[in-house]
Amino acid sequence: MRLASTVDARLHVLLADGSVDVTDALGLTPGPGGPLLAFLDRGGSLAELRALDLDALPTQPFDERRLAAPIARPGKVVGAPVNYLDHKAEMGEQRTIADYGIFLKASSSVIGPGEQIRLPYLDVRTDHEGELGVVIGRTASRVPAERALEHVFGYAPVLDITVRSGEDRSTRKSFDTFTPLGPWVTTADEVGDPGALELRCWVDGELRQSASTADLIYDVAELIAYTSHVMTLHPGDVIATGTPAGVGPIAAGQRVGVEIEGLGRLDVCVTDEGAIAYADRPGPR
Amino acid sequence: MRLASTVDARLHVLLADGSVDVTDALGLTPGPGGPLLAFLDRGGSLAELRALDLDALPTQPFDERRLAAPIARPGKVVGAPVNYLDHKAEMGEQRTIADYGIFLKASSSVIGPGEQIRLPYLDVRTDHEGELGVVIGRTASRVPAERALEHVFGYAPVLDITVRSGEDRSTRKSFDTFTPLGPWVTTADEVGDPGALELRCWVDGELRQSASTADLIYDVAELIAYTSHVMTLHPGDVIATGTPAGVGPIAAGQRVGVEIEGLGRLDVCVTDEGAIAYADRPGPR
Repeated sequence: MRLASTVDARLHVLLADGSVDVTDALGLTPGPGGPLLAFLDRGGSLAELRALDLDALPTQPFDERRLAAPIARPGKVVGAPVNYLDHKAEMGEQRTIADYGIFLKASSSVIGPGEQIRLPYLDVRTDHEGELGVVIGRTASRVPAERALEHVFGYAPVLDITVRSGEDRSTRKSFDTFTPLGPWVTTADEVGDPGALELRCWVDGELRQSASTADLIYDVAELIAYTSHVMTLHPGDVIATGTPAGVGPIAAGQRVGVEIEGLGRLDVCVTDEGAIAYADRPGPR
Repeated sequence: MRLASTVDARLHVLLADGSVDVTDALGLTPGPGGPLLAFLDRGGSLAELRALDLDALPTQPFDERRLAAPIARPGKVVGAPVNYLDHKAEMGEQRTIADYGIFLKASSSVIGPGEQIRLPYLDVRTDHEGELGVVIGRTASRVPAERALEHVFGYAPVLDITVRSGEDRSTRKSFDTFTPLGPWVTTADEVGDPGALELRCWVDGELRQSASTADLIYDVAELIAYTSHVMTLHPGDVIATGTPAGVGPIAAGQRVGVEIEGLGRLDVCVTDEGAIAYADRPGPR
């Protein structure tokens, strides 16, 4: 099942020939996180979605321009540093996720399809990092890898936009608009093995990243096991699983796209509106 | 005004001779973040609290054992690395917050008074870091330091519990129970200048940290200005402003207390129940 949140905070099930608005049928009252988070927060499951009588609800044409981030403000956005060996090599890194553990991105950094990445600095490089995103469906605390995938609700492409400066990862990766997520969430049952998905990332139509999630150092199950050893994962939390080789700078006016096999393609544009010189950032130095 | 959340998800105004439960008068329906977050999330303000006719509501004896974290699951918990010069010196640090920027702690790491800090590892040092916590009251995006304090709802003592291992700060500081917060929130109007507060932190009655927020490198206003340059701060977000010198290890069975002038004292105990050897943490290495 493919689930889309729209700009008017409605939850749609996407079908081949349109979509069905299930917001009222599910009795959702979306908060700032949007309708899908409201659904997951109150214990919503794939079984509940499957029990809906979609034929009894009107199918409408779906306008992709109305897509919002599937989850607008997750409880947590977890990132996986250096989780592909080829990215480790290109960054001249000596260490991997096994040494770094995980990092957190601000939940306020999420945007949806068609929104704009805003570059914060005019004179510091900002990179695209295309990744497989995991949406948690059931609370996970210290789960073993063998049981970890039972806690996944679904998957979506995600971009982990990153400033290449010297600050803590949480700072460099948490600027507003730095976590494009979407175009929708595909439920785990339709994805099968998350460790065998092709991932591609383009900038202005030029292919920059092309990899398989088979090359993850911590695969999805191991990443959930490790993360849930550190912190309890709640429904609607998002894990960005790490980026393969090919990261590079983005510039104002460009379009960044990330597509994952079976999960759709997310496109966003880049702007430097409001960007400042790095030396002008606030704070005494 | 002092606002306390209780274990049954009620919001109380604390008075000299007891407390008034204002949950129903404010029409709050608490979510997983508790009643104070529900209040701030829906635009609640000090003015609204002041407009309540407290005399018309029953005053009851207040049992401190019923205190919960004032905000159980904030939208964000922001931390300030190396934000006191004396802590920089004791850690042998060459850099400060001006270089590191900010970091994020998992919102799932918050606990309240009387709860227990759970040590994750039997064989890695875990430290207490007593700090002044700031609770955001109004959305803040790129606010200048001169206007930053207008976005503060209140203040509370907070502990930034930290594992001394090699991972990213977000990992080392985000284990469940690693952000004790409380005992309550004191609204900003009662605090006056947040840059002139005495802070003390004890372990088993031994004074370990004693400092003034006058010694912050980025003071509260500068910290909000910097943070809001990176990420939009929403009502209920919490900023831990950084720790002064005196941090040190905590051990199972100990009691950690942090008190800030005018804001009350937060006490929590430490346990190693469920702790594992560092080498046994999940993940292929």
